[in-house]
Amino acid sequence: MAESMSLLWGSGSGPCWRVMLALEEKKLQGYRHKLISFEKNEHKSQEVLEINPRGELPAFKHGDIILNQSTGACLYLENQFKSQGTKLIPDDPAKQAMVYQRMMEGLVLTEKINWAAYYNYMVPEGERHEAGLQRHRDALTTELKLWEGYLENVAEGSYLAGPFSLADVIGFPNAAYAFAFGLSPERYPKLAKYYNLLKDRPSIKATWPPKWFESELGFEALKDV
Amino acid sequence: MAESMSLLWGSGSGPCWRVMLALEEKKLQGYRHKLISFEKNEHKSQEVLEINPRGELPAFKHGDIILNQSTGACLYLENQFKSQGTKLIPDDPAKQAMVYQRMMEGLVLTEKINWAAYYNYMVPEGERHEAGLQRHRDALTTELKLWEGYLENVAEGSYLAGPFSLADVIGFPNAAYAFAFGLSPERYPKLAKYYNLLKDRPSIKATWPPKWFESELGFEALKDV
Repeated sequence: MAESMSLLWGSGSGPCWRVMLALEEKKLQGYRHKLISFEKNEHKSQEVLEINPRGELPAFKHGDIILNQSTGACLYLENQFKSQGTKLIPDDPAKQAMVYQRMMEGLVLTEKINWAAYYNYMVPEGERHEAGLQRHRDALTTELKLWEGYLENVAEGSYLAGPFSLADVIGFPNAAYAFAFGLSPERYPKLAKYYNLLKDRPSIKATWPPKWFESELGFEALKDV
Repeated sequence: MAESMSLLWGSGSGPCWRVMLALEEKKLQGYRHKLISFEKNEHKSQEVLEINPRGELPAFKHGDIILNQSTGACLYLENQFKSQGTKLIPDDPAKQAMVYQRMMEGLVLTEKINWAAYYNYMVPEGERHEAGLQRHRDALTTELKLWEGYLENVAEGSYLAGPFSLADVIGFPNAAYAFAFGLSPERYPKLAKYYNLLKDRPSIKATWPPKWFESELGFEALKDV
């Protein structure tokens, strides 16, 4: 099955990481993939645009079926390969609800990390304000405190919504980015514990953004959050 | 089943509308619900915070199960009541993929509508720039042109991803908001056709935001987009 799949991806892209993680967990290794360079603007190339008209990554195909929204691709992979690999959406109603809830909240956290870490990229020079950056940092602090509560009882085998699930496929890259951007493990101990419990999971190690092997923890954008 | 469900909602909230639409389509009428006033800041009341610690709406419960992220709630309702009411996620892989893709893209469109329509609400006074507002309006124009393409063959029974689906549960409120905020039906004729094909659908009429009966089309924030 995986032979009929192809993925155009960019290193350091959270959405790409999610799809790669889902593919690993569903035992869909062996898909074709190609690393696209954001630096060289290759995500705006014809090759990408033919699959993803937004000129964004991931650009994912399963046969003729195209899925470029990472959360949508993950939902699709879980539903199409339910009995293969890790079960990413539990059947039990309460557990299932928790997975959907934390999965979608994970996108909220991604957005807040992006605003705080990439403010200068997201806002043109003439429109930047120190107060604006600080507001986004404060919003991220508030958000992270919420997650510290969610992770109060985090332990081996009990992650964002119980056993490893779609909530972690969306959520783990958030934790990895935050710490890579200098977030303090001391101020966010539960998130740090979560990160440490999962960072050596085979699917995560196999998909770790390659650039990060050299530069992990080399950024400081979130060190004061 | 619906008797064990309760929804705290706010009029004019797209996320609330999505959940109400999904409940109608799944024939889950009869749930308890309460209109919460944003104007009176009731969404920050203890009653809401006990269910939704973010102090946001919707705040939805099914028995003891809590789901406050609207897309998560819709996914849950479809999965828990698969054989009841409208089938919102098709089984066929290609059709299912299209539903997930457009559903998640619908959240991108919501975000862009919000930035263009609520710029003054989202950016504090001292940080607002005419160029910033214009940039968000331009981004919405680009986004809407993409949707005009997606809707090229829109017709009765063939909506955002074929028959009425979760893509429309997320997508219809986007269209309704855009036109309520003055978007030109002449400039976006496919979106207008989509809107007109669905606006009298029973689930949509039953859940139309009540304030809008008086003030529909009374806003102009998007008239030049």
